[in-house]
Amino acid sequence: MGALEEGHFDAESPAIAFGGGGGAPAANTIEDAVRVLLKGLGEDSDREGLRKTPMRVAKAFREGTIVLVRCTLPSVCQIDLVSELCRKNKIGSSIHGYSRRRWKIEIGSGKEDGAAGKEVGAGQGYKQKVKDIVQDALFHEAGLDNGVGQAGGSGGLVVVRDIDLFSYCESCLLPFSIQCHVGYVPSGRRVLGLSKLSRVADVYAKRLQEPKRLAHEICAALQNSIAPAGVYVALQCWHIQFPEALKLNPNPRHPSRSIMQGWVRTSVSSSTGVFTEKSGSLCEEFRALLKFRGVSLDSIDSGGSSIHSWCPSKSLDPRSDSLASHSILVDAVTSILRSLDEDPSRKELVGTPYRYVRWLMNFRRSNFDLTKNGTTHSLENVDRYIRGGNEINSELNLPFCAQCEHHLLPFHGVVHIGFFYGTERKVIDRPGLQSIVHFYSCKLQVQERLTKQIAEAVHFVLGNGVMVVAEANHICMISRGVEKVRSNTATMAVIGQFATDATAKSSFLETISKSTATGG
Amino acid sequence: MGALEEGHFDAESPAIAFGGGGGAPAANTIEDAVRVLLKGLGEDSDREGLRKTPMRVAKAFREGTIVLVRCTLPSVCQIDLVSELCRKNKIGSSIHGYSRRRWKIEIGSGKEDGAAGKEVGAGQGYKQKVKDIVQDALFHEAGLDNGVGQAGGSGGLVVVRDIDLFSYCESCLLPFSIQCHVGYVPSGRRVLGLSKLSRVADVYAKRLQEPKRLAHEICAALQNSIAPAGVYVALQCWHIQFPEALKLNPNPRHPSRSIMQGWVRTSVSSSTGVFTEKSGSLCEEFRALLKFRGVSLDSIDSGGSSIHSWCPSKSLDPRSDSLASHSILVDAVTSILRSLDEDPSRKELVGTPYRYVRWLMNFRRSNFDLTKNGTTHSLENVDRYIRGGNEINSELNLPFCAQCEHHLLPFHGVVHIGFFYGTERKVIDRPGLQSIVHFYSCKLQVQERLTKQIAEAVHFVLGNGVMVVAEANHICMISRGVEKVRSNTATMAVIGQFATDATAKSSFLETISKSTATGG
Repeated sequence: MGALEEGHFDAESPAIAFGGGGGAPAANTIEDAVRVLLKGLGEDSDREGLRKTPMRVAKAFREGTIVLVRCTLPSVCQIDLVSELCRKNKIGSSIHGYSRRRWKIEIGSGKEDGAAGKEVGAGQGYKQKVKDIVQDALFHEAGLDNGVGQAGGSGGLVVVRDIDLFSYCESCLLPFSIQCHVGYVPSGRRVLGLSKLSRVADVYAKRLQEPKRLAHEICAALQNSIAPAGVYVALQCWHIQFPEALKLNPNPRHPSRSIMQGWVRTSVSSSTGVFTEKSGSLCEEFRALLKFRGVSLDSIDSGGSSIHSWCPSKSLDPRSDSLASHSILVDAVTSILRSLDEDPSRKELVGTPYRYVRWLMNFRRSNFDLTKNGTTHSLENVDRYIRGGNEINSELNLPFCAQCEHHLLPFHGVVHIGFFYGTERKVIDRPGLQSIVHFYSCKLQVQERLTKQIAEAVHFVLGNGVMVVAEANHICMISRGVEKVRSNTATMAVIGQFATDATAKSSFLETISKSTATGG
Repeated sequence: MGALEEGHFDAESPAIAFGGGGGAPAANTIEDAVRVLLKGLGEDSDREGLRKTPMRVAKAFREGTIVLVRCTLPSVCQIDLVSELCRKNKIGSSIHGYSRRRWKIEIGSGKEDGAAGKEVGAGQGYKQKVKDIVQDALFHEAGLDNGVGQAGGSGGLVVVRDIDLFSYCESCLLPFSIQCHVGYVPSGRRVLGLSKLSRVADVYAKRLQEPKRLAHEICAALQNSIAPAGVYVALQCWHIQFPEALKLNPNPRHPSRSIMQGWVRTSVSSSTGVFTEKSGSLCEEFRALLKFRGVSLDSIDSGGSSIHSWCPSKSLDPRSDSLASHSILVDAVTSILRSLDEDPSRKELVGTPYRYVRWLMNFRRSNFDLTKNGTTHSLENVDRYIRGGNEINSELNLPFCAQCEHHLLPFHGVVHIGFFYGTERKVIDRPGLQSIVHFYSCKLQVQERLTKQIAEAVHFVLGNGVMVVAEANHICMISRGVEKVRSNTATMAVIGQFATDATAKSSFLETISKSTATGG
């Protein structure tokens, strides 16, 4: 950590960025594209919460795909200046060109880490790069001295389990979470520094990916660079569900508060050498070591979720009529792909801009105000039996998926609503409350506002006391700078009786707590 | 993320480092000190595994305490060159001096993030820094429109739970793990971008710390910079146990494989404003929201572990006789403190070099070879009843704490040993096996070698078949570049009958698995 966010010395993408030299200023392409998208969502990209969103989105994409520096064509003069500066200060530096449109300049103190000038970019420098990561961390380690057996640098299984990663889905551009497990069997009396297994995996995760290919690439890279007896890579991947699917199946009977609630999951693996035979003894041992950590790979090789259905966007028609009017948005996303040096005509990427726009359009701004038109949204005004006026009613674990307006990334979780019935004998049932939650989450949001709006909407109808607790995982806390994989945010809003009655508040919190304890 | 380790473009401490100008080359102080320490451990700092250790340790200390750039005194010429380069390329840059001995130069593209030249260092720039982090991320958020209550930007509780951090113990220089929970109540219709709560906490964690002060500093910084109605910071901290203590209490009856097994734990909190009264309604709500995530803060304010006993080194006599001969090592550690711009005469740091050396000396190299002198280590040669020769005997969850030779940081966990008795009617009991584990873990190690050596030692005594599985958490995987908090490494060694009998292997793995399932 120690990396500070945009608006500060950028410790995470530290390279020197050129302003575009004499050519067109390409550096702002992603930012411009994001502004187009915001407009398409009916938003004013100059309003406070959105003003820096284009910059944040661009930064996340660039970091997330290891595009550190982009410029049209750095002039010889610029390169010379950097080189001269570094020479004068005895700083190691190197300049790499990966393609006509992407360059990277590295500055590092040769004195301090003895390793200035190594490549970290993508593209052509690819194979060298993994070799570079690995070669400084291959250590001689003797095998067993005597007796029949395997251990140390010759044949003893080594497995690093539970490496948290994230990547970007090439079908829809959304980040997906990865729990990565890497095993290998050393040979030639050489073992690899453990952190390198994680670093190599991360190099391949940091691009537009698809789980199966990701597993293959990590596996092949490790096999090629450390030449062990075999490598086994197993990935558990979670892809966020699209709101359409969430709406269709809000799962009211068995609500779950687990982090991955509602996510699409797949497990994939790739192996080489001694792990090639999946029923072999070594593969069994790998799986046993994972089982110690509660990880079951049973479903991986026996099919599991088909890779064709991995990205939920694939099952939606990407070119539906509703998107025909959004060609300007699709073009904007296509330009983002180009900015990432991806080829939008690559087979896997052809529908991606459509799918990303489709995802975004779930969060289109609506001028319709639910609180003023509540009854049209499944709010039931029927005169029904109302339980005692002082009894707290509650609906727990109403799922939602909103879009963070600061990062254009989803945050998702559950909402708990406690309420007193008012004197007007109106009621709202669970589907009604779910509609309210859905309405306010399907837009560019911040969690604090979402919580407040839900409370106000419910209060508008019932007119007595309402308390709302929202719990959410923010993808921007995982896939961006801070990378706090486990963090989870809770927000609270109280109106009416709850605001003045501390007992009512704590009683409702206790109700939520109990629902968790009973496996909610 | 995306940061690659030493040996590559240093994405985590990217500033330009000067080679010391005309003065003495101070940049290598930590490296030199580490070489002294390695020698004191009886190690050859030129051997392969240790060759880059000084550089790795220095890098970890510098990153871990936000000392990005150090130089004696940059010349005006050097500063001018950087400025000129940046001007020519339309890159924002700024140069800050924090003390006579520490400077930082920042280069950032003003065009891209609009925020070049902000400070991130420590020292004098301190208060400005947190303000800078925060001020770009304070967003206007309306409170409730109508009705009595709190929500949104006025009074609705916001809590980010389970932020993983680590810091360095000022008493012994070892990293400690932190689970951080931050809550605040917005006022003035302003809310803070959620990731900033994590970033501000991280700024204060990235220095030599003590839990209570850390909580206070995070709390005060947030209160001062966002001026909310109140801030509540709760930290759960885990400090690794010293091997002496581990040896005294190996806990053989209730072995645990939990990550924090054997760790010293403390919980602390700090609060301001509306949270000042710990029994108040808002504090209760904060605790309730944490309870949803399984976090119980009951022990925090009612005492818990006394802060005096937090660091296990404090209960050991730091100036024991055995350390008298190590004054050169103590001096080396003192010089590391100075390199981090800490004052070694600061009250809390006075005993720190002694305590760090004391810790290190647990891992002194011994030329004594256990396999050749086994019987002196509680190995029982008594002629006892030996169970059937083909039955697998096992001792599970033998705890250990070793020192990673690549990073001088502990890795710790448990060892499982399965074995067949040989024909010589020798036996080893659990204390005997624990001695072997302790002997091989108390030195500079890598997990693969440790696993092999334990297997060989047991095999030397029993002479039939041995299988060893080691499971460990590596602090270097947490507190250094990759920061994979949850990752855990398993290694395996097999000798004799286990090497040829796949059924025996899988049977032993099943035994371990069952011990986990029954709450091991």
